[in-house]
Amino acid sequence: MNSTIKHQLEHRTIRFFEQKPVPEEMIELFIQVIQRTATSNGLQFSSFIRITDHNLKQKIAEIAKQSYIADVPELFIFLADGYRNTQILKESGDNRKFNSMDVLLQGITDASLSAQNLTNAVESVGMGAVFLGAILNDAQALVDLLALPKLTMPVLGVAFGYINDDPQLKPRMPMKYRFYENTYRTFDDYHQELADYDQVMKTYYDTRNRNQCLAAFTDQVVLKATPVAGRENIASVMKKQGFLLD
Amino acid sequence: MNSTIKHQLEHRTIRFFEQKPVPEEMIELFIQVIQRTATSNGLQFSSFIRITDHNLKQKIAEIAKQSYIADVPELFIFLADGYRNTQILKESGDNRKFNSMDVLLQGITDASLSAQNLTNAVESVGMGAVFLGAILNDAQALVDLLALPKLTMPVLGVAFGYINDDPQLKPRMPMKYRFYENTYRTFDDYHQELADYDQVMKTYYDTRNRNQCLAAFTDQVVLKATPVAGRENIASVMKKQGFLLD
Repeated sequence: MNSTIKHQLEHRTIRFFEQKPVPEEMIELFIQVIQRTATSNGLQFSSFIRITDHNLKQKIAEIAKQSYIADVPELFIFLADGYRNTQILKESGDNRKFNSMDVLLQGITDASLSAQNLTNAVESVGMGAVFLGAILNDAQALVDLLALPKLTMPVLGVAFGYINDDPQLKPRMPMKYRFYENTYRTFDDYHQELADYDQVMKTYYDTRNRNQCLAAFTDQVVLKATPVAGRENIASVMKKQGFLLD
Repeated sequence: MNSTIKHQLEHRTIRFFEQKPVPEEMIELFIQVIQRTATSNGLQFSSFIRITDHNLKQKIAEIAKQSYIADVPELFIFLADGYRNTQILKESGDNRKFNSMDVLLQGITDASLSAQNLTNAVESVGMGAVFLGAILNDAQALVDLLALPKLTMPVLGVAFGYINDDPQLKPRMPMKYRFYENTYRTFDDYHQELADYDQVMKTYYDTRNRNQCLAAFTDQVVLKATPVAGRENIASVMKKQGFLLD
């Protein structure tokens, strides 16, 4: 097994970092990795914001309701971006807009591919990272905070740095239930099928709540069917940003 | 520079492969990489279908209007998936559904992270890959072909295998125009800013049209503002699959 795959199989969410800056030449290399990431149709419907302002990090920590974010050494925000190409159209005297669900989907996908590629680069040099979907707990506040123009939408964040954390590998359900051949496969009784996984999950300690085991997976699903407050606004923020969702 | 980052900086879209199968033990390793990929909230809102049936590959090639897909050694389709967890709710006597824009977004993001992670693994062993967004050129046909249940949605495909292709690195716009610090940055005249990039892009030969240079980037943006036929249906297929887009 090569070192890339070794790091991938050992992927853990790292939330706590040494107070040691990531060297700028490393940041430059990571930006190149983001630049070389595949992009749908070559249209580069994604953009990135590096948060270096400590005050902004604190505000993003408040939006995500995760206080450790205020202290992360590096924080990149990944955006779906139809703005830049729409400006190019406008300059060409063309009044159409890159505002469709198709464009938004391409932008979300491009942004996500870049975020994973960055994470692989970060982990390859022995640093650690955390994906931050919780930046969308108040998407409108984030849009305002970063002065995002119409036809852009935040997708996720990645925080990274030198590791000061030692979480367990988080158990995942057996791939039998997620990976199929040629056609989708359904199961009659997921509770029964996932009974072993439910047991394993109860032995896992999350670093967000160090002294508390997680619930069984199937119980978590029920608990998390109630969305975090604010997340019911995501579609309305997409619309306010100018995307047509139909 | 380590081998992971070296591969990332040399990423090229590979469309043509040796007619040599990918060993099953390698596939098993790649499935583990997908399994270990980060997932939003731990909820695993994504699923994967490996296409081994040649007839299905041909039909997907027709959907994507890219004939080479019929002959790729390996083809994985990445899905956003709210179905499985909705079944878990149902079994628990809870009639709520994972059908929100929030869930769809988490699923698209999870699926995309897995697709990039797979691609990094593939490239780390010297094989090549292509991301296939064009599988959504007729999303409803793909949903039918793979018997996708409600609350699942195809996001993208990845084809991979041993490389029999030698494309150029595709030029990308300077990161000055995509990567910002603390706040979004706009430019007054993208045509002027991107003039050098436009020139470089004209020297690039795409392997889809081997004897034909691409247009300048800003001209491509105008050309591609007219979506490929079928892609205007993506939102309606999402709705038909049961997702609420508002």
